[in-house]
Amino acid sequence: MALTNIEKLIAKAVKDYNLIEEGDRILLGASGGKDSTVLAWALSRRKVWKNPNFTLEALRIAGDVPGGGMDAGGAEALKTQFDEWNIPLHTVHVSIMGSVKQGHSMNCYWCSTIRRSELIDYAIKNNFNKIALGHHLDDILTTLLMNMTKKGEIATMIPKLQYEKYPLTVIRPLALVLEQSIRDFVKSMGWKAGTCSCSYGADGERKLYQKKLDDLTNGKEDAKRLLFASMSNIRREYLIPNELVAKLG
Amino acid sequence: MALTNIEKLIAKAVKDYNLIEEGDRILLGASGGKDSTVLAWALSRRKVWKNPNFTLEALRIAGDVPGGGMDAGGAEALKTQFDEWNIPLHTVHVSIMGSVKQGHSMNCYWCSTIRRSELIDYAIKNNFNKIALGHHLDDILTTLLMNMTKKGEIATMIPKLQYEKYPLTVIRPLALVLEQSIRDFVKSMGWKAGTCSCSYGADGERKLYQKKLDDLTNGKEDAKRLLFASMSNIRREYLIPNELVAKLG
Repeated sequence: MALTNIEKLIAKAVKDYNLIEEGDRILLGASGGKDSTVLAWALSRRKVWKNPNFTLEALRIAGDVPGGGMDAGGAEALKTQFDEWNIPLHTVHVSIMGSVKQGHSMNCYWCSTIRRSELIDYAIKNNFNKIALGHHLDDILTTLLMNMTKKGEIATMIPKLQYEKYPLTVIRPLALVLEQSIRDFVKSMGWKAGTCSCSYGADGERKLYQKKLDDLTNGKEDAKRLLFASMSNIRREYLIPNELVAKLG
Repeated sequence: MALTNIEKLIAKAVKDYNLIEEGDRILLGASGGKDSTVLAWALSRRKVWKNPNFTLEALRIAGDVPGGGMDAGGAEALKTQFDEWNIPLHTVHVSIMGSVKQGHSMNCYWCSTIRRSELIDYAIKNNFNKIALGHHLDDILTTLLMNMTKKGEIATMIPKLQYEKYPLTVIRPLALVLEQSIRDFVKSMGWKAGTCSCSYGADGERKLYQKKLDDLTNGKEDAKRLLFASMSNIRREYLIPNELVAKLG
């Protein structure tokens, strides 16, 4: 059973960023979408052939945003798929619509905040020490561009992040994998992966920034990898020192 | 004589980055284009009303790239303009076409390298300690994006750079000024500023990246200022440490 290209990139990220350690109890956030599905499959294979030993389970947060999740058939199919890969799949039901505070409207940011908080809660209660998320290279770069142009800071979602508030580490084993590779792979495997078709996210900022990322890099892998590498190659001598930041307006 | 908005931003850059000091002998690179022309005008005004005292002269590098410079009439008009502003304008003639090495073709990078080297040479020989260049905010951001996606590093042209090899400091007093403000200002003053219409630069990378910058920021000033600020706001904890850079391929 040869390693796929995606698995090689996962292996590289796991090694370089020390994502998986002996005895880890890893909870994977499973949305039914292509990213977390590919990640589940790859980690389940890795568990079979690779030391260190780790436990892998998955949690699906079933929300109530119209069009934002799977129907009963989709949930059933996901369960079957995860069973095949020997990944216990748990489900919690959450009212995301009901959690929106008065005067606020539903959006991707709020929905993912609620989901993340449920995932954290479940992980802590069930003694997991790591949460595996399906964010890929394009997500990391999109976040970088959003942070630079909307928050004025150079920061992103990193492959490994220890929460300050919780005894939990977030890992992103797909950090080096292009979104297009995931799309191609899902297609080649004939898997049906859901996409969130909730109307609240249709004009989401992240989608706009995915377009901006492709404009900036011409959608080319080499430019994306250089952009990723730039975050680790900060030439302080060719930047303006923090204490000299021009405060305008 | 009220300060224009451009002069206020120049004053801010001069102060924040300590660009001009008592007794400075500043040589301005004058191409006849809008950027260096606006800078010359603003610095000549500043010289009149503002301490510290400094000397300001300008150098035009007249090249031989077809369409890449001014005709005799343009050069005459520039001289008249600089005379009005009491800026001594010197001219050196350089064969840029003749300097292209065999097997290489002319391009913007080579042309600007030759011009810069002449400017440095002239400054040293004539006892200047600073070179003022007309790069503006958009140039600085374009360079940042080019460095990130083509060289894999976070770096740009900074407002003040002390050369390692020469007793010279480069200053960029327009660092906080948007290109559009310069365009608008030149128009409002009725100045005729040349644009380089040399055919070698027509499809230049920098032009492509100016478009990418506008795609990324929607051409909006606030997004550009945040992008600029991000270079001084590097959140190391949300970046991948240098020693963990994934070396691919």
